[in-house]
Amino acid sequence: MDKQKFTHPLPLKSVRVSDGFWGGYQCLVLDRVIPYQWEALNDRVPGADRSGCIHNFEVAAGRASGEHYGWVFQDSDLMKWLEAVAYALTLRPDPELERRADETIELICAAQQPDGYLDTYYILNGLDKRFTNLRDNHELYCFGHMTEAAVAYYHATGKDALLNAAIRFADCIDRNIGPEEGKLHGYPGHEVAEMALIRLYGITRDEKHLRLAKYFIDQRGQAPLFFEEEGKRNGNRFYWENTHFRYEYYQAGWPVRRQRTAEGHAVRAAYLMSGIADVARVTGDDSLYEAAERLWRSVTRRRMYVTGAIGSSHVGEAFTFDFDLPNDTVYGETCAAIGLVFFARRMLELKPRAEYADVMERALYNGVISGISLDGTRFFYVNPLEVVPEACEKDENKRHVKPERQKWFGCACCPPNIARLLASAGQYIATARDNAVYIHLYIGADLDVILNGRPLSLRLRSGFPWNGQTELTVTGGTAEGRIALRAPGWCPHCTLRINGAPAEAPAEDGYLLLDRDWQAGDTVSLDFDMPVTRVAADPRVREDIGKVAVTRGPLVYCLEECDNGSSLHLLTLPSDAAFDVRECPDLLGGIRVITAGGRRESAEWGTEGLYAPAAPRQSVPQTLTFIPYYAWANRGVGEMSVWLREK
Amino acid sequence: MDKQKFTHPLPLKSVRVSDGFWGGYQCLVLDRVIPYQWEALNDRVPGADRSGCIHNFEVAAGRASGEHYGWVFQDSDLMKWLEAVAYALTLRPDPELERRADETIELICAAQQPDGYLDTYYILNGLDKRFTNLRDNHELYCFGHMTEAAVAYYHATGKDALLNAAIRFADCIDRNIGPEEGKLHGYPGHEVAEMALIRLYGITRDEKHLRLAKYFIDQRGQAPLFFEEEGKRNGNRFYWENTHFRYEYYQAGWPVRRQRTAEGHAVRAAYLMSGIADVARVTGDDSLYEAAERLWRSVTRRRMYVTGAIGSSHVGEAFTFDFDLPNDTVYGETCAAIGLVFFARRMLELKPRAEYADVMERALYNGVISGISLDGTRFFYVNPLEVVPEACEKDENKRHVKPERQKWFGCACCPPNIARLLASAGQYIATARDNAVYIHLYIGADLDVILNGRPLSLRLRSGFPWNGQTELTVTGGTAEGRIALRAPGWCPHCTLRINGAPAEAPAEDGYLLLDRDWQAGDTVSLDFDMPVTRVAADPRVREDIGKVAVTRGPLVYCLEECDNGSSLHLLTLPSDAAFDVRECPDLLGGIRVITAGGRRESAEWGTEGLYAPAAPRQSVPQTLTFIPYYAWANRGVGEMSVWLREK
Repeated sequence: MDKQKFTHPLPLKSVRVSDGFWGGYQCLVLDRVIPYQWEALNDRVPGADRSGCIHNFEVAAGRASGEHYGWVFQDSDLMKWLEAVAYALTLRPDPELERRADETIELICAAQQPDGYLDTYYILNGLDKRFTNLRDNHELYCFGHMTEAAVAYYHATGKDALLNAAIRFADCIDRNIGPEEGKLHGYPGHEVAEMALIRLYGITRDEKHLRLAKYFIDQRGQAPLFFEEEGKRNGNRFYWENTHFRYEYYQAGWPVRRQRTAEGHAVRAAYLMSGIADVARVTGDDSLYEAAERLWRSVTRRRMYVTGAIGSSHVGEAFTFDFDLPNDTVYGETCAAIGLVFFARRMLELKPRAEYADVMERALYNGVISGISLDGTRFFYVNPLEVVPEACEKDENKRHVKPERQKWFGCACCPPNIARLLASAGQYIATARDNAVYIHLYIGADLDVILNGRPLSLRLRSGFPWNGQTELTVTGGTAEGRIALRAPGWCPHCTLRINGAPAEAPAEDGYLLLDRDWQAGDTVSLDFDMPVTRVAADPRVREDIGKVAVTRGPLVYCLEECDNGSSLHLLTLPSDAAFDVRECPDLLGGIRVITAGGRRESAEWGTEGLYAPAAPRQSVPQTLTFIPYYAWANRGVGEMSVWLREK
Repeated sequence: MDKQKFTHPLPLKSVRVSDGFWGGYQCLVLDRVIPYQWEALNDRVPGADRSGCIHNFEVAAGRASGEHYGWVFQDSDLMKWLEAVAYALTLRPDPELERRADETIELICAAQQPDGYLDTYYILNGLDKRFTNLRDNHELYCFGHMTEAAVAYYHATGKDALLNAAIRFADCIDRNIGPEEGKLHGYPGHEVAEMALIRLYGITRDEKHLRLAKYFIDQRGQAPLFFEEEGKRNGNRFYWENTHFRYEYYQAGWPVRRQRTAEGHAVRAAYLMSGIADVARVTGDDSLYEAAERLWRSVTRRRMYVTGAIGSSHVGEAFTFDFDLPNDTVYGETCAAIGLVFFARRMLELKPRAEYADVMERALYNGVISGISLDGTRFFYVNPLEVVPEACEKDENKRHVKPERQKWFGCACCPPNIARLLASAGQYIATARDNAVYIHLYIGADLDVILNGRPLSLRLRSGFPWNGQTELTVTGGTAEGRIALRAPGWCPHCTLRINGAPAEAPAEDGYLLLDRDWQAGDTVSLDFDMPVTRVAADPRVREDIGKVAVTRGPLVYCLEECDNGSSLHLLTLPSDAAFDVRECPDLLGGIRVITAGGRRESAEWGTEGLYAPAAPRQSVPQTLTFIPYYAWANRGVGEMSVWLREK
């Protein structure tokens, strides 16, 4: 690893998203999602699954009576909401929301135990049992999300109540877990604390926090296996005993440096990989970078859907094996795609390579935002690439796939996760080091950067995802140094102009490198061709053989029943069909629709039996209408398919 | 229903199978399967799952100590074995085997309770709990299999010990269950007793036995729902509470006359449908025939695989919905295909229509015998149409699919079921009524029939399944009347000769009707064209769209990895490819192999990413080698596929 090339994300305050597309999502989060989720966390959304989050804290703080409700990780939903609030307050001051957050933090702190411990499940069910099942009971996961919220809220408001609570909880964990004799030699069954501790370390610079994160990474999967010992010692039931996963479900089948493939629960795996990249960056440990890079390749080159979704099976919400990417029984949890975005950004920090940004963009524009309805009040947990509503109801193998977004979930990890990601979208646009700024995503924004010690104000404008016209203008300051602009992997050709004049620039790892003495008024325009593209999958992906997906720029498109009729499997796309792109400002929040001259095979079947000698299939022309995948399931229940047969 | 047209199967003693193909299977059952399964039932097969069957009876009879082992329906495995033994003794006297069977029956009778009750699970776990969970605890199922064994053994040997025990158990059930006040208004959670009682009634002519069978059919699904009431009354846990099945899992969602579709557990459904047909025949109840016919169409025209397998999902081992026939996650239990054979034969008894026999043949030659290895010692429970061994291991949705046959199962319903079916194969060849004999299956055999009161000996010779040459010779007797010969649905053309001279015959419901004064020496030869056929599925079957299966005569063929290399999904069959049929006497017990000039798409993928702009797919010629589906997985573990893409 070349530490000279490391980059860091810009502080959120230095990035003001002004983009119509992502700005719209951010407004949605501020105006709809955060208030809606507050109601949900307070169990006030009619018809939605109960959350119990606030209730649990109130009981734990002694302000109400009752029992703990929900999952062992219920606390984390509130923490993710608080983190989203923190980003929201950075985007737009809101004294009322801040007051509510402060009160919530005050409630959380009131529930904290004298030694710093804070997990309402154990506070309400018996503190004597705490730390007896790190494998399954998510205390360290709740700690992680609390810490992420605390860091975000501190950065947003300067208030340190939650930060100090997180530090006290970290200290409590450090007293109980670690390499020393008498401590538990354990690590989180559900990762996230690794990332969180590195963020905490970024503020505290307390070696203890780094050491704990590093310990969680290094100790994972070491023999004797902590989870196995712990399970025996405490009589914990091992849910995955008779599966092929066993401890790989928890990414504990091997020490991380010996893991060859991304295994098990996809969200956990993505959070672990993000944590590995974080610790690699802070410690400069090459072997960890190699581990992260190896897992990156495993995920993105062999186990990722075209939408950036990951996790092929609902059993264990998990990876299965290389090139196993079924479109209809997929899991593709929203949180897992979010985790992949986290991982990609961290890999970009280690090494600015467009491959990382390509995946980040793929996940963001497709598998992440498909998780939320256009009105911000309904959510997908599972993001399928092919849906037949009847199958979701009557095939128990597909019952995890919902043909419509849900109001809330008993296990509600995804809705607040998407809220915190969207509210912090600015952190994924660019990373920088002393002498260079890397633009990874073409999201319209105003950016304040420091280049070779000198402040520079940049304005990024972009037609993404609808057209490829982008423009970067220096709006203030002057500085010499590099601005590197990503050339997306999907783009066959782009045109560069600097201050209006055609220009060329050397490329490295997928970035155009512009080394220059930047002056206010300098304008770089970069036009990316954004043709409609038929995309094929690696032929080892059995489920996609003979099929293509239609993409344009960063967007994957899909067919919906309401545009194309039912029985989508009868539609085919001739290999010479021409595509037409049409702007539809009033459809689905304003999209570009793609149409193509396709064909529909006849559903006629001249016999009563199910099987008959094959005859040439009759077909009739049909205009195929594709909409962006992220926007599906906003017009009622119906079939949907990303892949279609090419003929 | 036209009762004049009803037919009945020939007594097993009147049918001597001499066919190389089915005779071979029968020898296997006699020489290998029955002895092997005896060892299994006695827990003496190394490495096989424990059965506990004999053990349970020994303990129940007070001859050994211990606890009940295995499932609540464990007894039925032994009963099915005994039934197979009964047929075996009909096929070939075997004093040693008969002695063993007699001893076993003596053991069974010794376990019977004074009031006739006989189920080792409750005898060993508390008789006070008997009849408290008809829904799930299989007492009536065990009774059914006991009765079927008893009837078969009585017919085979004339010995009535087990028959009398079955009658006593039937009386016990009749005292406890029925429409009268104070009795349970229940019926079996797992059907089979309906069929069994009708067989028992065939011997006893005791109206009580018919009445009970009829009650089980009529009462099923009536409101208030017995299973629901029983569950509440006894606090039985309802396993299917949160599924779409609920009581449809047990075919109890509706009274049988109002059931529109075959639902739930496929074996139970098939046994119920068989029982409906049986009761329809004995009572002449048109509404029951209509119910049976409606369910027949639901299964065979919308929910049956090309192999005759039924049950699309491992969850509930069940039907899902119309045209939902996934090839890789299929259940297709061997017992369910056997149940479909039972059902088809009973429909033929009601009305000789070739459609019924076509399905019977399809299931027998494909989805049934695929359940047993060519050496008779290993068994499939699940019969997939597409297998990738890695998926069976690493995709939990496919872990029920095994890429190799197993020695035995903890739940061992299938092995003895296939044994009893193969040993009684003669009962499926023909049915008769006073003035007609219907030949349904072209299985070589000598048949003794009575035609218009006069005995006639027939010899049926057949090249099935390898060639379509068949010959029926009158070898003794003389009689006037009809011999009807089925023209299989798969056959495009056949040639009829009578005594060497070309002949024609009228056809009705798929049978050629030969009305004649039959004399010894009369010979009817019927040559069925047996071309290799590409078969397509109804286009509503999503999983098979764009694909064909290769069949020849009654056999469905498949591709195996050991003949065709791995990645079978890359293989395509050009629509103009010619087929070649080759006799391979030394391969897989002697088969005809089909080859065709196919193509293999390149697995080359010029990029490191999973997705890339679609380019024309390169392919190279490859000879495709197809073997009969029933013979797959006899040469080690590898991929297999029935359907392949047509190009």
